[in-house]
Amino acid sequence: MKYPNGKKSSSPLSKSKSKPDFSNRGMSLEEDIAATNEYYRVANIAIIHKKPTPIQIVNVDYPKRSAAVIKEAYFKQASTTDFNGVYRGRYIDFEAKETKNKSSFPLSNIHQHQIDHMKDCHKHEGICFLIIKFSVHDETYLLPAHHFFPYWDDQFNGGRKSIPYNDIKARGVLLPFHYQARVDYAKVLDKLYF
Amino acid sequence: MKYPNGKKSSSPLSKSKSKPDFSNRGMSLEEDIAATNEYYRVANIAIIHKKPTPIQIVNVDYPKRSAAVIKEAYFKQASTTDFNGVYRGRYIDFEAKETKNKSSFPLSNIHQHQIDHMKDCHKHEGICFLIIKFSVHDETYLLPAHHFFPYWDDQFNGGRKSIPYNDIKARGVLLPFHYQARVDYAKVLDKLYF
Repeated sequence: MKYPNGKKSSSPLSKSKSKPDFSNRGMSLEEDIAATNEYYRVANIAIIHKKPTPIQIVNVDYPKRSAAVIKEAYFKQASTTDFNGVYRGRYIDFEAKETKNKSSFPLSNIHQHQIDHMKDCHKHEGICFLIIKFSVHDETYLLPAHHFFPYWDDQFNGGRKSIPYNDIKARGVLLPFHYQARVDYAKVLDKLYF
Repeated sequence: MKYPNGKKSSSPLSKSKSKPDFSNRGMSLEEDIAATNEYYRVANIAIIHKKPTPIQIVNVDYPKRSAAVIKEAYFKQASTTDFNGVYRGRYIDFEAKETKNKSSFPLSNIHQHQIDHMKDCHKHEGICFLIIKFSVHDETYLLPAHHFFPYWDDQFNGGRKSIPYNDIKARGVLLPFHYQARVDYAKVLDKLYF
């Protein structure tokens, strides 16, 4: 996620001097989800993995007696979401996004092919959702895909290019922070889908 | 799949001069599965994707006004199987392997972490299996993971390092070849798991 634009996420401390900032306790949303998934795996709760970033390989060296070295390659746009796996026998599929915006989630964070993929999976009764973190509020929401789709589609019919924070608050579910399950989405899935 | 060892799959025609070889109709098992998955997606049957090959990126160039170029990277061992997705709401997870062996499938084709992953998913009621192609016989089998696990575990208790072809024939299901669904595993899943 960090590679394609070469930017590093800024330090939480640099955002504001006026008040202490505990947003993500020093970890990015992606790191929190990785830690949660690892906890879920070890604790026998769910098996969810992040998909590797797709790479277009152009040139590879095969030195004798040592590992192949990729000498030229490019980042490709993913054709799916970043995370998928299995929870209680059901297929789980989600994308995770962090925004510094206070009052809305810009739809430009998501790509059309990711929506296409989520719509496909939703059609086949997979459990699809977004995890959206508002870093300024230090709040992370699970937004079921079927609540997200109308906002996505509306933008092409003259609708707004973002989802208001208050709508996400109303239609999504706030994910509690726990030490081990830092983004404890499985518990929310229990309530929403089982 | 081809990158890590730098080998290209040999032409089907080069295998034998004594008889015509129609094995995989000129396509590799992986290509056949890719075509099948694409057909399943378009025909609204299932959503199954191959995971990208995981790459360890060491060095990236960010030229101004053009795409980032990966200058040094290495192939990593995958921590999961190659394919997963959703079919009829259930989580699907499988690995596909081709062997030139006539009489058995060598277990060395599979890695421990792939087994660990399949056991994890199986525990969470995912549908896990292997697709094994015997290219010499031009036969492709679906072998449910729970039939595979005992062979895997036995090799560490003095058991054989391969699964006899006849056992795969007996415990697996032969996958028919269709023009669009070249490796039509979904139909077999209907019978085995639904």
